[in-house]
Amino acid sequence: MNTLTIVKIGGHVIDRPGALQGFLADFIRISGRKILVHGGGSMASDVLVKGGIPVRIHEGRRITDEAVLRVCTMVYAGWINKTIVAQLQALHCNAIGLSGVDGNVLTAARRPPVPVDYGYVGDVAPGGVEVESLAMLMEHGFTPVLCAITHDGRGGLLNTNADTLAAMLAIALTQTCAVKLIFCFEKQGVLAVPDDEASVVPTLTPAGFLQLKNAGVITEGMIPKLDNAFAAIAAGVEEVHIKHAENLLTAKGTVICRQVEEDC
Amino acid sequence: MNTLTIVKIGGHVIDRPGALQGFLADFIRISGRKILVHGGGSMASDVLVKGGIPVRIHEGRRITDEAVLRVCTMVYAGWINKTIVAQLQALHCNAIGLSGVDGNVLTAARRPPVPVDYGYVGDVAPGGVEVESLAMLMEHGFTPVLCAITHDGRGGLLNTNADTLAAMLAIALTQTCAVKLIFCFEKQGVLAVPDDEASVVPTLTPAGFLQLKNAGVITEGMIPKLDNAFAAIAAGVEEVHIKHAENLLTAKGTVICRQVEEDC
Repeated sequence: MNTLTIVKIGGHVIDRPGALQGFLADFIRISGRKILVHGGGSMASDVLVKGGIPVRIHEGRRITDEAVLRVCTMVYAGWINKTIVAQLQALHCNAIGLSGVDGNVLTAARRPPVPVDYGYVGDVAPGGVEVESLAMLMEHGFTPVLCAITHDGRGGLLNTNADTLAAMLAIALTQTCAVKLIFCFEKQGVLAVPDDEASVVPTLTPAGFLQLKNAGVITEGMIPKLDNAFAAIAAGVEEVHIKHAENLLTAKGTVICRQVEEDC
Repeated sequence: MNTLTIVKIGGHVIDRPGALQGFLADFIRISGRKILVHGGGSMASDVLVKGGIPVRIHEGRRITDEAVLRVCTMVYAGWINKTIVAQLQALHCNAIGLSGVDGNVLTAARRPPVPVDYGYVGDVAPGGVEVESLAMLMEHGFTPVLCAITHDGRGGLLNTNADTLAAMLAIALTQTCAVKLIFCFEKQGVLAVPDDEASVVPTLTPAGFLQLKNAGVITEGMIPKLDNAFAAIAAGVEEVHIKHAENLLTAKGTVICRQVEEDC
């Protein structure tokens, strides 16, 4: 069976050209098949602010009206995606930038308007991943670079959370490959002591996660990220790591465990 | 041998949602393989103006500094490309949106800075088209939708003229297919009497083109468009038509002839 590594990067890497370049140089050294999923929310917020369009975030998710959807599509599928793909091509990695509409690879369902109307925001279910097309592209030597713009199949674009998208993609692709999922972000891993980068939790079980959440150690944006990580490992993804983008090939960061530590 | 139809559309169709929808409904009815190439300059200019970035056009070509390149990439590769692909998907056409960086399909050379420094503007030579990748995608049932953002192979994006890109693509793909090239624009074809839509020239030879240019009937933006059309027909493209986007499947518009009218 082929091995596939799915790496997700966020704004902290994307916004700093030097960091991005170093990250991509590491990324191409991953052996086997690979997919890069990127966010870019901070750059989208900058463009919105400059355009006088209000930035509204509710519980870490962006409220997306028509003007926001247009900016997010321009920033994610346009500037960020093509900048990354151009750099990968320069490194002789045959990357292909895709949004969910391209080759119909990611279909999403628009989120219901109650209790919170997020607007043009969608969620991908594992069934919304066009596994065969992605597998075919990788078989022909392409490295997909995915942004988190999806579609509803009826002509409408949808803004989607990139962490969730990476997890759903990983789960769906377990049908064809042994999948490893790496969430890269701006910290060394899950920290036992907030802001102490030396306090990385090396392995985290579902019980350990609950405990750290109840203790108020894991809060805010880390909660949905870890929910995605545990959903992936529970659904058959072989390995899930959470680590700093600068350590893609070195430190393990936090390794997510299925049930008990022996599973990691 | 497979047949391939390459259709190029510009801002006049893209800017009007109803016109675009009608055009796409016609486009999917083209039999055989097909590729859509789109511009979108007027929308890019709107975004530039709103962002307080000066719009500078020299002899029909946009002077592209870093800020302009970013906006053009966002508008062409982001919003316009993904909007079109989403609509084609809704029509059950398995479109895949690509810029030149994606799968390395279009490499361009940056234009020399003298006599005019256009900035990040590149020209595609027929050798810059990755014929095999495009053929492979079409073989697997994908319909490529290309915007006119290309790359230099060293990590840099380049703004490229969409008419020239369509012609170079058509020429390169004659290696694999019998190619037909259709330039759609806002007029019924080449007009013998400017602004008289009933005066469409049904066939145009190189000599006829020269005559109408010298008489001042064909001017400005039509000259490079026709230069591209004649370059394509001279290099082995089977048919080249210039017509209104609303007549994609009906009127022929102006048919470009290789040498004499019998060739058309």
